[in-house]
Amino acid sequence: MTARQMKLGAFLWATGHHIAAWRHPQAHATAGVDIDHYVQLARTAEAAKFDLLFCEDAAGVREANVNIASQTSRSIGFEPISLLAALAVQTSRIGLVSTASTSYNEPYGLARTFLSLDHLSSGRAGWNLVTSASHIEAANFGSTGLRPHADRYERAREFAGVVTALWRGKLDGVSGPGHDSRSFSVRDPLDLPRSPQGAPVMVQAGASDEGRDLAARTADVVFTAAQTFEEAKAFYTDLKRRLATYGREPDDIKIMPGVGPIVAATETEARAKHEELQELIPDDVGVALLSSYLSISDLWRYPIDGPLPQLPASEGMQSRQALVIEQSRRDNLSIRQLARHFAGARGHWRVVGTPAQIADELEARFEGGAADGFNVMPSYFPGELDAFATLVVPELQRRGLFRKDYEGRMLRDHLGLKRPK
Amino acid sequence: MTARQMKLGAFLWATGHHIAAWRHPQAHATAGVDIDHYVQLARTAEAAKFDLLFCEDAAGVREANVNIASQTSRSIGFEPISLLAALAVQTSRIGLVSTASTSYNEPYGLARTFLSLDHLSSGRAGWNLVTSASHIEAANFGSTGLRPHADRYERAREFAGVVTALWRGKLDGVSGPGHDSRSFSVRDPLDLPRSPQGAPVMVQAGASDEGRDLAARTADVVFTAAQTFEEAKAFYTDLKRRLATYGREPDDIKIMPGVGPIVAATETEARAKHEELQELIPDDVGVALLSSYLSISDLWRYPIDGPLPQLPASEGMQSRQALVIEQSRRDNLSIRQLARHFAGARGHWRVVGTPAQIADELEARFEGGAADGFNVMPSYFPGELDAFATLVVPELQRRGLFRKDYEGRMLRDHLGLKRPK
Repeated sequence: MTARQMKLGAFLWATGHHIAAWRHPQAHATAGVDIDHYVQLARTAEAAKFDLLFCEDAAGVREANVNIASQTSRSIGFEPISLLAALAVQTSRIGLVSTASTSYNEPYGLARTFLSLDHLSSGRAGWNLVTSASHIEAANFGSTGLRPHADRYERAREFAGVVTALWRGKLDGVSGPGHDSRSFSVRDPLDLPRSPQGAPVMVQAGASDEGRDLAARTADVVFTAAQTFEEAKAFYTDLKRRLATYGREPDDIKIMPGVGPIVAATETEARAKHEELQELIPDDVGVALLSSYLSISDLWRYPIDGPLPQLPASEGMQSRQALVIEQSRRDNLSIRQLARHFAGARGHWRVVGTPAQIADELEARFEGGAADGFNVMPSYFPGELDAFATLVVPELQRRGLFRKDYEGRMLRDHLGLKRPK
Repeated sequence: MTARQMKLGAFLWATGHHIAAWRHPQAHATAGVDIDHYVQLARTAEAAKFDLLFCEDAAGVREANVNIASQTSRSIGFEPISLLAALAVQTSRIGLVSTASTSYNEPYGLARTFLSLDHLSSGRAGWNLVTSASHIEAANFGSTGLRPHADRYERAREFAGVVTALWRGKLDGVSGPGHDSRSFSVRDPLDLPRSPQGAPVMVQAGASDEGRDLAARTADVVFTAAQTFEEAKAFYTDLKRRLATYGREPDDIKIMPGVGPIVAATETEARAKHEELQELIPDDVGVALLSSYLSISDLWRYPIDGPLPQLPASEGMQSRQALVIEQSRRDNLSIRQLARHFAGARGHWRVVGTPAQIADELEARFEGGAADGFNVMPSYFPGELDAFATLVVPELQRRGLFRKDYEGRMLRDHLGLKRPK
């Protein structure tokens, strides 16, 4: 029997995950709309045997203030599902996971698009379900504003149920009654055969109580943001425990926290690389990003070297907000310090060091019951993905923690997931 | 100055446009989900210097009766926008036009997806706007049923206005008021730069009075179904005349009727090829397709060798219905004869003959003021596309009616369209 091995995702994000990546001399400033750039990243990740490519999505600019938005590493970018379709025909093994919203799509169209991508890639597609917490997106889809958190999750539960039924061929307008839930009415089966891998992989990232519950019910993979080992382990333990409620085994979900590695041959060199990036972050950009995590708009009114103010309750991303507040209390950080800290890795775990040091950190979480793998978020592309692929992956392989080659052809094979019946 | 030349589209449609194509011994029965098949077609069309690839779309099975649907040449198929994204990276010049509905999408998401495809292909994307006339699709997007024809077109007009504004960067959530029309509220600009070709190409195919009016207002290209020269010329003349109302020139729209060519070295051979296909059409499939064109469900109750019954008014595709009725009266055809006639070419113009005969027919409509080019609908793939590319295209080139090579890189260049300001 093969020992348990890590799952690795390559999280694609225009110029890079570090918010100031676009200012880095080795970054590609207009990468977001350069298909050749993405093809290169996909090939690098596939050559390193990553499980999957991952794309986030939002139907709107990422930052309400255009002056701020234009100073971030993801001010422009392709629509991700069609991007992954283009990458599908330039790769042969790596999984292709895109985010899509249950608030601004309809289940029939979304189920069809992902099943189509799954056929187009011979069984490598996955859907990262998000409920869309941004007021900015809401304003592009009508004038009624962002739905409350609980309503979004109720819709998401029903939406996921309809999509799953369509993927499994359970809806049939001729021999059955179709699906009429409170929110959705869908009559037909899809005009596509069953997925080569049984069904596209279901991914989620919501970490609130409702988000975890929905993941325990429907997800195959969960991405998460956790700064400390304790946070990561608490999340991991809680989510795996919830699976029993839905008659599922702990191994039915792979939990993959985000990690922003900065790697170099020596620790000194790695720290210098990190400092170089941190110094490129303008204060106003850091504060704006922190504001969006906190779902408040007037953080800039408070003294930048003072503490976070008391925050009102929010309908935005509740778990992300809690994470920031927790960190601010734990380390007694000023707004400026918090802004730099979160802006750099966008709220995710940052590891800086040699290949062995980074492998140690990943191994500790993987073996310590805090992760089944990691969603790797390189600080700038292609340089930091290349560095991870050529320095860290071989170290993980040497330790027996990561595959040396793909054993199957489909995303479920890579992830060790059961095929749905 | 170069003489006026034809525009040619290659209309991709799973196994082929002939409804019985899937039964043809040289056809590829599961072509609809075989990406290698589509890559091959795209390369053939690009090598022959076609202006564009064209994909239809419907979010639902094409035929309510699954037993009938499974006996047609398009019972399964990819979602077309992601299909074209995959083809974008396997080609370099040919245009990429996909259908998408104004009834089951939102303008922000649709504008973004097409502009993304336009960047992904370096300026080769086009959107074929449809309002979606099918009750089958409507039943997959809620329980309220198909919207009336006039309402669909009112929504389409507003939808097209918002999409066009987004493509031209006229919406700006910071410096302007955003867009609030009756149906849509959109605040932000898109998170993409301006299109390399100014804006994706706008295509339409609606032929009702409202459809023609919308085309005259917004379209760059119009596809149409016309059986006879007179029908084609009347449509052409009427649509070009309507342009003045919107301050546009006749040359601002390219009118490209569909044509289903069956070509062989001799006329006898071509007729035999056609007969072979026609004989593969089961009567129940022909009648079912005719029923869907007529938007009625009980045509099978009437004697198959008798005339069409009187038809009720319909909210479906009014122009297509009128075309069938007109043909039935003109040639005094029975239901079976009409079914075979329309099922074969799905209501489009069929030409059968040698390369010179087909070139003669196309030339007559092109020079006679009935067409600016043609959307070529091969009866089965890849055979009939190959035949058109290797036999008819060289004949058109020899006559100076079609380009020998691309002169530009973008779809607007091929079509000779102005860049929007």
